[in-house]
Amino acid sequence: MYIMDGKEVSLKIRKILKEEVISRGISPKLLVILVGDDMASQIYVKSKERACKKVGIEAETIVLDNNTSQKEVIDIINKANKDKSVNGILVQLPLPDYMDASAIVNAIDPLKDVDGLTVINQGKLVSKEYGIVPATPKGILALLKYYNVKLDGKDAIVIGRSQLVGKPVAALLLNENATVTMAHSHSNDLQNLCKNKDIIICAVGHAKLITADMVKEGAVVIDTGINRVHNTLVGDVDYLAVANKASRITPVPGGVGPMTVACLLQNIIECYNLQQK
Amino acid sequence: MYIMDGKEVSLKIRKILKEEVISRGISPKLLVILVGDDMASQIYVKSKERACKKVGIEAETIVLDNNTSQKEVIDIINKANKDKSVNGILVQLPLPDYMDASAIVNAIDPLKDVDGLTVINQGKLVSKEYGIVPATPKGILALLKYYNVKLDGKDAIVIGRSQLVGKPVAALLLNENATVTMAHSHSNDLQNLCKNKDIIICAVGHAKLITADMVKEGAVVIDTGINRVHNTLVGDVDYLAVANKASRITPVPGGVGPMTVACLLQNIIECYNLQQK
Repeated sequence: MYIMDGKEVSLKIRKILKEEVISRGISPKLLVILVGDDMASQIYVKSKERACKKVGIEAETIVLDNNTSQKEVIDIINKANKDKSVNGILVQLPLPDYMDASAIVNAIDPLKDVDGLTVINQGKLVSKEYGIVPATPKGILALLKYYNVKLDGKDAIVIGRSQLVGKPVAALLLNENATVTMAHSHSNDLQNLCKNKDIIICAVGHAKLITADMVKEGAVVIDTGINRVHNTLVGDVDYLAVANKASRITPVPGGVGPMTVACLLQNIIECYNLQQK
Repeated sequence: MYIMDGKEVSLKIRKILKEEVISRGISPKLLVILVGDDMASQIYVKSKERACKKVGIEAETIVLDNNTSQKEVIDIINKANKDKSVNGILVQLPLPDYMDASAIVNAIDPLKDVDGLTVINQGKLVSKEYGIVPATPKGILALLKYYNVKLDGKDAIVIGRSQLVGKPVAALLLNENATVTMAHSHSNDLQNLCKNKDIIICAVGHAKLITADMVKEGAVVIDTGINRVHNTLVGDVDYLAVANKASRITPVPGGVGPMTVACLLQNIIECYNLQQK
């Protein structure tokens, strides 16, 4: 078993990005919009800000309280869409229940949509056209390629069908000519669905959902879960047991997480570049 | 085994549409753009025109020769986008090789995109937002629902990954909570992939690709293929042998084909309605 070291690969990506920002003398800027006081969201936003600054990307966060109206958020987005000094706009999810998250996300100019969540960027991905790909799926693909995992003709299963991870990673694998099964909370007999798969990608948020008996000897296992159990972070995969059967596996933490951050930074630079055209 | 009679169901849909057009006193209009002299395309366009007229939809076809430039086609689309008397625009595919089909299709106003092929409508489908769904997948879903085929939690396989059929039908099944496997020309061991599936949808264009040994007893089998063999039209499924094992099956002709035409007409009316808002 070989660990796919997302920390190591992400540091390489960040080094390249930093050198690019310096050598081109550019100063891209990310605007983050955070609504409410969700603790996890605040931590994520801080970590994104820090990662930006380390590679020379300016990061500004607008914090709005829980009474903010949807219109106020969209007004801020519209202003940022027009502001040439802002290259990327990220609305931290989840939004409060009373807001229409889709209406807010789709107010973002697709050229500044660093999360790749707008209908246009999602459509480009399924249409195999160039667009901004959500950071987690992009990071997963980069990790698979870094470790020379063959995808063409392989049987892959993606468990979880979110717009941010499950669906776009399935589209990416399909574009790489894998046979892709999409499983989710309504799927029956997950063990049977997983057992012959060459590649298993779990993006559910359920600790130890994937156990060793579900995994084929030699499978490649990607774990995007971050679950807090007894004050420890664990993934969706029963890591120690599954690692004994898998040929490659991502740890949690240190697997997909850091790749997501690195690919978000890549997306900000990509947005910057798209806006120069 | 029960035949899913696309002809019968499509006639019901067309009857409802005709009554709607008459009772509302509306006169929707479809503009078809046909480039080149491909015989099959000419036949398809004629049949679409006839179907439109039967329900009270006006259909106009602009025929362009093989020397037409991409810009000329896009100019025609731009004009039709602005023309309030045109409610639906359909570019008959395939386009000549020298044209960028994606650029042409995406020139169509998404509100007039009766084929549901623009990036925006494809993105809406994967994002589970309301948009125009390509007619063949829409017809397949309507047929499955008409015959009360349960989709939630069922294991489905879609063979073929075109933008017009395979990918959107997979998205529709996923939205209905089926577990969906996408297979295609790079997939290995199609027999093994199909053998335990509750629902098999074949959209490849390869006569008798799906044989009885690939199909589980009681499976539901949908055949979108139209292949000419010895001057007879046959589907992608070895019909007589598979029909003995399937619980429900679509014939060719008379299955998905007429549903596609009926759902194209539905899409024209939907586009008309969207434009009134």
